[in-house]
Formats: sequence, C-alpha cells, structure tokens
Amino acid sequence: MARIVMKFGGTSMAGIERIRHVAGLVKREAEAGNQVAVVVSAMAGETDRLIQFCREASSLYDPREYDVVVASGEQVTSGLLAITLQGMGVNARSYMGWQLPIRTTPAHSAALIDAIDADILEGVFSENGIAVIPGFQGVAADGSVSTLGRGGSDTSAVALAAAIKADRCDIYTDVDGVYTTDPRIVPGAKKLAAITYEEMLELASVGAKVLQTRSVGLAMREGVAVRVLSSFEDKPGTMVVGDDQIEDYQMERQLITGIAYDKNEARVTLTGLPDKPGSVASIFEALANANVNVDMIVQSVPRAGEPSDLTFTVPTAALAQSADVLEKLKEKVGFNEILTDTNVVKVSAVGVGMRSNAGIAAQMFKALADRGINILAITTSEIKVSVLIAEEYTELAVRVLHTTYGLDDNGETA
Amino acid sequence: MARIVMKFGGTSMAGIERIRHVAGLVKREAEAGNQVAVVVSAMAGETDRLIQFCREASSLYDPREYDVVVASGEQVTSGLLAITLQGMGVNARSYMGWQLPIRTTPAHSAALIDAIDADILEGVFSENGIAVIPGFQGVAADGSVSTLGRGGSDTSAVALAAAIKADRCDIYTDVDGVYTTDPRIVPGAKKLAAITYEEMLELASVGAKVLQTRSVGLAMREGVAVRVLSSFEDKPGTMVVGDDQIEDYQMERQLITGIAYDKNEARVTLTGLPDKPGSVASIFEALANANVNVDMIVQSVPRAGEPSDLTFTVPTAALAQSADVLEKLKEKVGFNEILTDTNVVKVSAVGVGMRSNAGIAAQMFKALADRGINILAITTSEIKVSVLIAEEYTELAVRVLHTTYGLDDNGETA
Repeated sequence: MARIVMKFGGTSMAGIERIRHVAGLVKREAEAGNQVAVVVSAMAGETDRLIQFCREASSLYDPREYDVVVASGEQVTSGLLAITLQGMGVNARSYMGWQLPIRTTPAHSAALIDAIDADILEGVFSENGIAVIPGFQGVAADGSVSTLGRGGSDTSAVALAAAIKADRCDIYTDVDGVYTTDPRIVPGAKKLAAITYEEMLELASVGAKVLQTRSVGLAMREGVAVRVLSSFEDKPGTMVVGDDQIEDYQMERQLITGIAYDKNEARVTLTGLPDKPGSVASIFEALANANVNVDMIVQSVPRAGEPSDLTFTVPTAALAQSADVLEKLKEKVGFNEILTDTNVVKVSAVGVGMRSNAGIAAQMFKALADRGINILAITTSEIKVSVLIAEEYTELAVRVLHTTYGLDDNGETA
Repeated sequence: MARIVMKFGGTSMAGIERIRHVAGLVKREAEAGNQVAVVVSAMAGETDRLIQFCREASSLYDPREYDVVVASGEQVTSGLLAITLQGMGVNARSYMGWQLPIRTTPAHSAALIDAIDADILEGVFSENGIAVIPGFQGVAADGSVSTLGRGGSDTSAVALAAAIKADRCDIYTDVDGVYTTDPRIVPGAKKLAAITYEEMLELASVGAKVLQTRSVGLAMREGVAVRVLSSFEDKPGTMVVGDDQIEDYQMERQLITGIAYDKNEARVTLTGLPDKPGSVASIFEALANANVNVDMIVQSVPRAGEPSDLTFTVPTAALAQSADVLEKLKEKVGFNEILTDTNVVKVSAVGVGMRSNAGIAAQMFKALADRGINILAITTSEIKVSVLIAEEYTELAVRVLHTTYGLDDNGETA
C-alpha cells in the first residue's frame, strides 16, 4: 500500500466526460489498495474566463476579491469529481482550502503555502475514503480566500504530498512525460524515465513547461517524489526525483538529459558605454529595482579608458519596461544607444552528468559553428550550458545538439 | 440614515455591464448616507449550468457536493461586485456564507437559515463599508457549504435584513413591482404601491412570481419591510409590509388587490367512488404520503349509498406520480376511472379587504357566468377566492375580474 497524491490539470478536468475518465484513474489507484488524495485544477479556460471578469470589473482589481472569484473554478471541479467518484461507488468527499485548512501567506493572488493541516485527511484515509482538494487555493490567517498564482495547482499537490508524507505525487497532464527535447522539433525525442529536480528546474525555466517551476523547487526542498504522466494515455510517465534516487530509475545516466529552447527572451545592447567604475552595476541595479530578471550578460572587452558595448537578455514581456528604465539612465551613465532584438532564442543543454565532464560546452560551440550558427551570448551553470542565437536557427540548433549529445536513439532511455 | 439590504437577482448580475449598473445603484444608496449590505444571485443561467454539471456527473448526486459546486456562482458575483464597487471608490468587501457565517441546517441543497452572525457586518458598517454577500448559500454546523434551494437568494436577503435589523430589504429584479394582474393580459394593470405579506403570499403561490414565497413568509414572521423594484428602471416599486403598516402607503385599500392565475394545476376526477366511510380520506392520505400537494377539492353529493365523483387538483408536475398512486388504490377503494385534465387554469382574486366584505365570491361567480365560463372547482381563504376553469378562458376571465373589482383605473394606486 502506498500513499499517493494525484493531481489533474485543466485539460484533464475540462467537462464531465473527462472528469469521469479522471475518476476512473483515481478509482483504479484506490482499488489497488492505495491511500489517495486528489488535487484538481479548474476546467481548462475557466480561470481565464474568471480573470477576464475581474479585469473588466476594474482594471485595478483588489487581489483579495480576485481570489474569491478565481478560486471558484477549482471549487466546482472538486465537487464534480467527488460526485463522479461517489457515482462509481467510491467513498469520496471534497475539502476546500479553508476547510482543511491550507494556510497561506496573505499575499492575495500570489500567496505562498505556509502549512497544510493533515488531520482531516488522516481521518479520511483511516476510513478508506478519498479526499478531493481544489488546487491553487488556500486561506490566509484573517480567514480570507487566497490563491497561489497561475499554475499553483502543481504546487498545491506537492505541498499536500509533503504534508501527508505521501510516497509519490502524480501530476497528470496533457503530455505523457518529460522528453529529451520538444518532439515537434525532433520527432525522435525520447521520453525520460527519470530526471532530477535540478534538471527539471533548468528544463522548465528554459521552456519545457511540463511542471510549474515553483512546484519542482518545493518538491526538491521537501524531497517529494513527483511523477509526470498523461491523463489521456496509459503510459509510465517521467519520475522527478533527487540525485540520490535517480539511479533507481536509470542504470546509466547520459551526460546530457535534454535540449530546451526559450523564445521568450529579448536581447538588449547598450553601445558606447564609458569605461567608468560602477556604470554596469548601476544599470543592473536599476533593472533589478524594476523587478526585471536579467539573464545572459556579455560585455565586449574595452581597451582601457575606451567605451564598450554591453549586451544582456530580459524576458520579452519586460522589454518595454526595461527600455523605459534604461532610457532614464542614458544621460547619467552616458551610453550612446539602446538596441533591442526580440528575434532571438536561448537554446540549452541540461544534464547532471556534465558536472563531472569537461568539454560539454566546447562540443556545443563547435556543433553550432559547423552549421554556421552565430552565438550571441553564453551562460553556463553547473548542469546547463545555454547559448543565445538568432531565432530562425531554433529548429536547426535543437536538432544538431540533440544528435551531438547522443539523444537520438530509438525507444525510451532505460 | 437608514440601514438597507439590497438584493440583486440573476438578470441584474448577468455580466460585467449589468454588475456595473448594480454598483451604481449601491453607490447611490451609500452616498445618500445609508448603511448598505448587498446580497447577490449568480449570473443568470450560471446556476442552471452548474446544476447540469452535477446531474451529468451522477444522476444520484450527493447534495453536499452539489452545494459545493452550485454555491460557486454567487461566490463569483459577490467578488465581482466588490471589485466593481472598489473601482468606483466605494469601500466594499465580499463575505462568503462560511465567513460571516450564515448558519444553516444540514439539509444540503434545501437548507434553512438558522442564524446569521451580525458581528462582522456591524464592524463593516462602523467603518462606513459595504458588505457584499452571496445569496443562496450558508454553512452547516459541520463546516460544510450548504445552499438554500432554488430562489433562496431572496430568503438570504430577508434573513440578513432581520439579522442586522435593517429598515428595509430592497429586492431588485427584472420587473418593477407587483401589479394588480399580469400586464401581458391586462395592459391597464396597475402597479401596487403596497401590498400585505399575506396578499403577496397568495399572489405568489397563484402565479405572480415576483418574490420567492419562502422569503415572503420569513419577512412576515420577522416583520421585515420588503420593497420589490426594478434594477433596470428607476421607478418606486412595491412595498410588501404588514397589515398594520399598509396604511402608511395607501390611504384607502381596494377590496381586491389583484387577480392572479396559475396554469400549473391539473384536474383529477375519480368516478364511481363508493359511498363508504374513509374512502376519501384514504385517497388524500396516499397522495400526502407521496408528497403531492392537493389543492382544490370538489365532491358531487351522492344519494345515500350510491357512488359519487371526486374531483381535485394537483400540480401538473406531480400528475404522473399522482396517477400511479391512485392506480394502486383503485381496487382497494373501488372507484371506476381516473380522469385527468391539464387544460385547466386556476384564477384567483386576492385582497385583505375581502375579510370585512361579503359578496366578493358571489360577484366573481356572476361575472364569469355572464361570459359563459363554467366553474369546475372553487376554493376560498380569508383573503382569496379561486376558481378552476378551462384554460382557454384564462385571458377572458382575468380581464373580466380585473374590471369587475374596479382595478382598471388609470395610473398607480395611491
């Protein structure tokens, strides 16, 4: 017998037919003798509909009331899944965030989970019952409804798994696992049997949006074993676990686990930056104060006393704001121009294996250079090498790197 | 300064534009110096949509989970109205049924309000705030969400008005008040400035569905002054008050306040009923046990020892079930046939004035007989005379009686 949290996303809950299918999956786990708690998202499209209502009601909507409105989507699907399970003869009941309770910080519309009371759930398990819990929502200390921000349902599921010391947190979604890269670009991309938290974080932040980044970070801190799998196809999925458990799933690790890409970065170049102490620092300080997340940074090496160029990337969504911030600094810092380019893509190779293996970056640069792909910027971390290139080379670069790192084999990795 | 509960129905809350209009009405009352609590329904059609989901999920849905699902409709509109009011610079906040709390019986999907805690609301009023409260919902003693059944939002509003000792409960709806009869049948029907609780109950139960019957009964018991008015037109509406207050609104009462009709009755006739003690009683007992509400009853006077015919009416919706119940009694009680007729209408004249005035019923019978309209059954109460006639005469009978009782004057009653 295992204790399992099962989480179903919006497409899995979109309509009664799909909810009935989900109920079948839940029933199967319960009949296998497992203790099951289920976390559900709102029906696909419903949260957007509710957010749109709030925006129309007032452009400066109160996040406290916004939470009251948008939390209703998960309330509906929780009740409907409980009803459906009962109709199949399964002893199920829903518990809202304020009923358990799921205690959060008071940061409405972007709350963090403080604690989840497991008492009610332990009672449900002891009576062989199944609890259905709305994701995304909780209750603040003042008794008001709170929500965790978009995609928060994954985080709800992982936090719940930690609270009840679940053996596993199964995240059912509309893809059947984590692949070595985007199968739309590389048809031979393989599904990974397992991946570490850190690799998943790097892959998620660079574009493989299977699991919400925040939930992966929480799973890593709490040591929750997460499985990503499809609610539409009966396939094994991908385990997301710690470095110490990864060997339970893979006899031998590849050096590189996957190739990711992210088109949501924009390049900014400041030309003619004077060679003065503190001028670069003042630029990044101003951007940080505006909550702009700067990623890749390249500075041309100036001859002493001569101006240089500074290039960096920001999220495309923050480009206009960044330009505003920089425009105000122009005179004070004394650079010439602000050049921007949104036709760029960040391509990354991610893998825990590269820690113990030099030459991964060099391999990447050579493979891209051989295809005449110009590298605009580079960043590296312990388990990731990323390059910024022109967007038109996205598919070519991903395919080349997928092959370069030996990920093109047939079948799934063992 | 007055303390007012304002309640808005589903058509008044159907979409952001209408909610914005509602917010304007609320703001006006607040700016006039009044203390205001607002009770809202779900958007028109939303509750039906949610109920349909529950039915599709399982034909035998758990009413506890049904309540979780359907209560979400009012949660959404409460939050949206609070947001809209805030956007207009009004200090507003929503409070769910479980937050106030509005305590109810545990009869899920048909709960009764036990008590409403006024503490939070008194705090809101003392800070010149406006509370927005979802109608239709509350919380049971075990902490589960409960709902009051269809149309329960009117009841929520009246109960809230009683709890906070409001001076008035304004029910905003899509009609602008209570009329002497259906204006679609009698274009000269007049809007009543005021009506007593009892008259309203009789008019509601016979077809003038402006206010939910249950809320009128509660208003009568608690002495809550209710005003029915349109949220779409800026007109005075109709006050619903006690006998002792009615004179504040009308110098002189008409004998008859209004003419109502109800097509949702079906006639049942049992022929050849043996003249045995207890046979009639056994029939009505069986129908009562099946929760069928028998209304008008006529028995032909038999010659001693000879069989007679028994005629009565039941709600059309309960006709099939009634026929089943009666079929089972046929042999035991020994009647011949069960004849049914759904092409009938109940037409009623209602008025507190008839208490002190004989001859109202006789006037009705003569007016109908003069037009050749055959009366199939009669019931009377202290303030109502009803007749059952063939449905094809509905409009003729309503017009004739409206004229007979002098309701055809121009303008509104004073």
